[in-house]
Amino acid sequence: MDRETCRRMDAADPLRRFRDAFRLPEGVIYLDGNSLGPLMPAVERRLGQVIAGEWGRGLIRSWNDAGWIGLPARAAARIARLIGAAPDEVAVADSTSINLFKLLAGALALRPARRIILSERGNFPTDLYVAEGLAGLLGRGHELRLAEAGALMAALDEDVAVLLLTEVDFRTGRRHDMRALTRAAHDRGALVLWDLAHSAGALPVDLAAADADMAVGCGYKYLNGGPGAPAFLYVRRDLQEQMATPLAGWMGHAAPFDFVPGYRPARGIQRFLCGTPPILSLVALDAALEIWDEVDLAALRAKSLSLCELFIALVEARCGGHGLHLVSPREPERRGSQVSFAHAEGFAIVQALIARGAIGDFRSPDIMRFGFAPLYLRHEDVYDAVEMLAEVLNGREYEDPRHRVRGSVT
Amino acid sequence: MDRETCRRMDAADPLRRFRDAFRLPEGVIYLDGNSLGPLMPAVERRLGQVIAGEWGRGLIRSWNDAGWIGLPARAAARIARLIGAAPDEVAVADSTSINLFKLLAGALALRPARRIILSERGNFPTDLYVAEGLAGLLGRGHELRLAEAGALMAALDEDVAVLLLTEVDFRTGRRHDMRALTRAAHDRGALVLWDLAHSAGALPVDLAAADADMAVGCGYKYLNGGPGAPAFLYVRRDLQEQMATPLAGWMGHAAPFDFVPGYRPARGIQRFLCGTPPILSLVALDAALEIWDEVDLAALRAKSLSLCELFIALVEARCGGHGLHLVSPREPERRGSQVSFAHAEGFAIVQALIARGAIGDFRSPDIMRFGFAPLYLRHEDVYDAVEMLAEVLNGREYEDPRHRVRGSVT
Repeated sequence: MDRETCRRMDAADPLRRFRDAFRLPEGVIYLDGNSLGPLMPAVERRLGQVIAGEWGRGLIRSWNDAGWIGLPARAAARIARLIGAAPDEVAVADSTSINLFKLLAGALALRPARRIILSERGNFPTDLYVAEGLAGLLGRGHELRLAEAGALMAALDEDVAVLLLTEVDFRTGRRHDMRALTRAAHDRGALVLWDLAHSAGALPVDLAAADADMAVGCGYKYLNGGPGAPAFLYVRRDLQEQMATPLAGWMGHAAPFDFVPGYRPARGIQRFLCGTPPILSLVALDAALEIWDEVDLAALRAKSLSLCELFIALVEARCGGHGLHLVSPREPERRGSQVSFAHAEGFAIVQALIARGAIGDFRSPDIMRFGFAPLYLRHEDVYDAVEMLAEVLNGREYEDPRHRVRGSVT
Repeated sequence: MDRETCRRMDAADPLRRFRDAFRLPEGVIYLDGNSLGPLMPAVERRLGQVIAGEWGRGLIRSWNDAGWIGLPARAAARIARLIGAAPDEVAVADSTSINLFKLLAGALALRPARRIILSERGNFPTDLYVAEGLAGLLGRGHELRLAEAGALMAALDEDVAVLLLTEVDFRTGRRHDMRALTRAAHDRGALVLWDLAHSAGALPVDLAAADADMAVGCGYKYLNGGPGAPAFLYVRRDLQEQMATPLAGWMGHAAPFDFVPGYRPARGIQRFLCGTPPILSLVALDAALEIWDEVDLAALRAKSLSLCELFIALVEARCGGHGLHLVSPREPERRGSQVSFAHAEGFAIVQALIARGAIGDFRSPDIMRFGFAPLYLRHEDVYDAVEMLAEVLNGREYEDPRHRVRGSVT
């Protein structure tokens, strides 16, 4: 496998044209789209119009005239297609944490005789914090039960109200079998809530086929909605009218602009909205989602696997003997769209790579995380990134003290 | 009182220069800054830099390099001065509704033997919905008790855990006596939570002097943070460590980037953060707040009163005989920075005014609401707006069918 072969693969890539929709900085190979997706010129243009025109000139009138009030539903409909949902089963609102709280609270109320929220010990911490926070607030003996991934089935007993899992693990990229776990939970009478933060836009998700009850997900990773973009939530249609959100804000009211006392939830998925949405951040997400209408998700997955397989093969071929250890599953079907290697010097290696222009990220204690967003990455980029990694390792660049300084975030 | 006199008042206005910091559309007199503040060119510039530079070129690195992680605290420190708080008593996060939920939940836990959230029947509906939603979720017999404004003191009994009030009423602009009500609530052992949505940036607020326990407020009204800008919350320093938010997201964790299971709240006000903030909307708020560092709040209040008094006097002088009815308190000290008149044709009158370029808004069933933001409004604008109102009324322009069409928002 050489650079020329990679270029030929890129020339034959059916998703090739989408790369032009992004503006990637000169000299950067961006392997961190699983943390923050890059800017698209179309998003920048739309933001410019909204800021100067809709806010600046339209002022308050833009809630009606520019359709701000309909933005959450428009963005939701675009996400629906990516996750195997109907447009009226998805809402865009708040943050992933907040949405998780809404749905977990609603779900516990549907299983009043049960006390357990079952999750995985390695689940994204904020998901666990939110579950803990809710259990503590309820004060009725609810508990967060944590199990290792392999022990989830065994931990699914008759006291589990909700199984709360992230489909693709943020550290390792390991992908759960959504259908099997959902079926197992349903067999025990539990509801299932999937966190799709590392799934939506990374691979095809089919919530309907999996018979999933609820889901949440993130707008700023593979969906490229910009830093801290609003999140989304999914509730299966037949559950919506049974569920209430305790975060009863006016945007979820049946008649928000009547300003009447007494909360009356809107019909359907709209009831899961809460306060006024951050329009600028929401506009960026909505604009970033436009491109997805044209993306063939099977081709997305095929390219994702091709990029990830190439990365693993090249790293193992070019960086052997440096103590890198693949922590992602080796079987492609069991992975999302990221590949992680562990190394005791992982932090400094990632910093040295960033200094060279190949941006991945690091997760404690020793995980180097590389995301492969198929819309804008090429096989050629993968090749070049591995060459840089080999140089960083061979030249022991990670020993440079500059690469050992930690910021507040990384 | 004629137009020339108004212009002389504007020439002597100590806040005159701040108008240049805003970009108001040609031909618009904007009396709706209490609903959505206008765009400032400095905000537009900063957004352009953040979008193209920090997001586009900096990508994920901007969390550290551009200081995104510190944005909530920076914006909070700027708001603190406007509300009589210390910087470490204010957090910027989420929406007003969500922040209200956090603090109400925390407050109820501090008064475990009490079951009542006391509020005012005419309080902003979303505040009441959130209180209802929380009470329902807790399922321990908590109730939202509603009283008319004049009956609040009498309704403050020993079962009230929290008194939840909005300082300035969104319909009438009536201003509560924050000190007296806070003292009365404390005398009965209750905590007090103030909604400052129509106070912050409209008039000087002194939470410390009032000995207030908690507050929430809005970023997109008088603070000009842009549509749906993040909201703020205040918790008196000595209460912070006693309170926990049930919305336990990672940004409120003591070590959010350690990704450890087990929620451990951050020290101080930081614990009231939840998920990842919407950076673009937060940047707009932060940039809009800069100007406030230079604003003399006593001068702000003086000008606000001057504008409101002028408006009332001119409307009563120029629009008599048309059935307008002042629903705001006549005594300046009992008003915020808005003036409301009721009229059976209020909706169509406001639409006719908007068509002429004087933008106010309408609130059911019959209230015409006019906000007077002292940073960018002139006495001359007030004069011109009243002239337009007189023409709309005298010419019965509100009978035009075009002004009777309702959008989804108004």
